[in-house]
Amino acid sequence: MATERTMTTTWHGTLLEGAGTIHEAPSGAFGPLDVSWPSRAEAPDGRTSPEELIAAAHSACFSMALSAGLARGGTPAERLDTTATVTFVPGEGITKVALAVRGSVPGLDAEAFLAAAEGAKTGCPVSKALAGVPEITLDAALA
Amino acid sequence: MATERTMTTTWHGTLLEGAGTIHEAPSGAFGPLDVSWPSRAEAPDGRTSPEELIAAAHSACFSMALSAGLARGGTPAERLDTTATVTFVPGEGITKVALAVRGSVPGLDAEAFLAAAEGAKTGCPVSKALAGVPEITLDAALA
Repeated sequence: MATERTMTTTWHGTLLEGAGTIHEAPSGAFGPLDVSWPSRAEAPDGRTSPEELIAAAHSACFSMALSAGLARGGTPAERLDTTATVTFVPGEGITKVALAVRGSVPGLDAEAFLAAAEGAKTGCPVSKALAGVPEITLDAALA
Repeated sequence: MATERTMTTTWHGTLLEGAGTIHEAPSGAFGPLDVSWPSRAEAPDGRTSPEELIAAAHSACFSMALSAGLARGGTPAERLDTTATVTFVPGEGITKVALAVRGSVPGLDAEAFLAAAEGAKTGCPVSKALAGVPEITLDAALA
């Protein structure tokens, strides 16, 4: 069954001098959140940005996909720590996502963990959606 | 100059029975946030999901792109309200993003607003990154 998730942003003014608010999430999990161009293209200064939100989405989605793959293989993860780093170049766009994962997986060797992580990188729904990002890299190792 | 935004998720256990935490954002803007498969594929139950985070990112990015386009055209926006609805189908992936924007733009007619909104839909960095999403739709009108 399909699920839908909706978020709203209100923006006032121009890009450079204006600012926006991402409304409270309908799930109730977070927000409202302030956003602005300087906090996206320079230092965050306490504000989030589209790239920070995508990094959150990708790190969570990759972790879910890898946990599923490991369980399917008969070696469920005890713990996975995934970081996603999203690079944004003004005028060019989102140029890279770097994924890094460290896993505690009883009974699995390093090579098999790497293979499972590569599968999660390719198969996770957010990776697939982000097909327009020129480069998605992966650094995977057992903890 | 490039900016980087990093987020981390820690996951314990399998996909269906385990659960994860998205760590506090380094910007300080939000988190930590709980995530789980049921809260992604069924009702959110107070938890966020990758799709909710992508909806937040896309609504903010589109608003920024449209504010920039309108200012470039000499008719800066007074206010833009953008919603992004992301559809997730388990086993299939992220199948659609529906954007809807209502704008207050002094001196601009409906047709020109629609053209600017179409430009933002095509040009915004998050739209471009999400090239793997089969369908991105736009509903744009003056408020």
